[in-house]
Amino acid sequence: MRAVLALALALGLLLMAARRRRRRRAVLFFPSALCCTEELLAEAEGGRPSPCPCPLPRADCSFSRLLRLLLSARRSLELCLFSFSSPELGRAVAVLHRRGVRVRVVTDAQYMALRGSQIGALRMLGIQVRHDQEKGFMHHKFAIVDKKLLITGSLNWTVEAIHNNRENVVVMEDAEYVRPFLDEFERIWEEYNPDNYTFFSQRKMNG
Amino acid sequence: MRAVLALALALGLLLMAARRRRRRRAVLFFPSALCCTEELLAEAEGGRPSPCPCPLPRADCSFSRLLRLLLSARRSLELCLFSFSSPELGRAVAVLHRRGVRVRVVTDAQYMALRGSQIGALRMLGIQVRHDQEKGFMHHKFAIVDKKLLITGSLNWTVEAIHNNRENVVVMEDAEYVRPFLDEFERIWEEYNPDNYTFFSQRKMNG
Repeated sequence: MRAVLALALALGLLLMAARRRRRRRAVLFFPSALCCTEELLAEAEGGRPSPCPCPLPRADCSFSRLLRLLLSARRSLELCLFSFSSPELGRAVAVLHRRGVRVRVVTDAQYMALRGSQIGALRMLGIQVRHDQEKGFMHHKFAIVDKKLLITGSLNWTVEAIHNNRENVVVMEDAEYVRPFLDEFERIWEEYNPDNYTFFSQRKMNG
Repeated sequence: MRAVLALALALGLLLMAARRRRRRRAVLFFPSALCCTEELLAEAEGGRPSPCPCPLPRADCSFSRLLRLLLSARRSLELCLFSFSSPELGRAVAVLHRRGVRVRVVTDAQYMALRGSQIGALRMLGIQVRHDQEKGFMHHKFAIVDKKLLITGSLNWTVEAIHNNRENVVVMEDAEYVRPFLDEFERIWEEYNPDNYTFFSQRKMNG
């Protein structure tokens, strides 16, 4: 009896430890140090590396870690982004789309058309984009990779934010956090469905 | 031997379960539903409730949950906020300061002087505030309660963000997340020490 109990407990502990080990957890702070992301992106794009060698350090930085996390997507990527103008992050998302990853983007109507926005280019590639219809901002800045990895924080996906601002990004796989964000994404995705557009609603006219 | 092993394992599991239970974990989404925060704040301020009854629902909402988490502080509160203009959040922080909680605020120099900012009022109460000296934004939006509870996300502490924007706030006690944010706060706090001000630095002049 005691042996069975001990075995069961040991098994439980091992399973817990395994689950814990599997979970990716990290905090990334910005501004990112400068490091070479060109090689990483060129490799992901399956092309030959650029003929001129990348002059930046090869060590990892917050930005390259963020790119790597995104590029780990195999099936799906949900993006809920107030502002998206980083060309490198745009390339990473385009690569995933070409690989067959199902990419869906929710963004803010007022910011999506700003100069440098990646949203138009991603739409041209055939990526589904929906935007808010509200007076307030769609101010989230999160990504969900393969429905299990949440990337969220203060960081807008802009060159300025990545290289000049103090920002944070939290990376987690705990279902307690991932599940509510997935639900929030699906809720917003449905709410911003073009079928439900109400361009001349009372709300807009009051706005 | 087996009995000792079983006992050790059972103890380990119990300790783990206890630690897990103690941890507060939550995700708050905004815009917050409307709910009465006046009673909560009046009670925290130790005063009599307002003579006119609060007309808003008494059920919890994201905003009241955020206020409650802050008001749970007993020893320290670190705030690292891009923008802080919510009068209710200002009242909560003032209450904590009066209670003897050590409050430290880091904020963005460009946003701290905007109309409605709470920063000036908090300084007048004697709360220590430091601000950035950089071209980029101090764009973090996090709070750390008693060095163990992290509150972070996309939410600036403004009326607009709380009541009109799509926002998220993640609440966690896991040391893997709290520790890096505490370190980031201390790093920034030292960096923005007025003793280190360089008002006429090359950087500012180029800015």
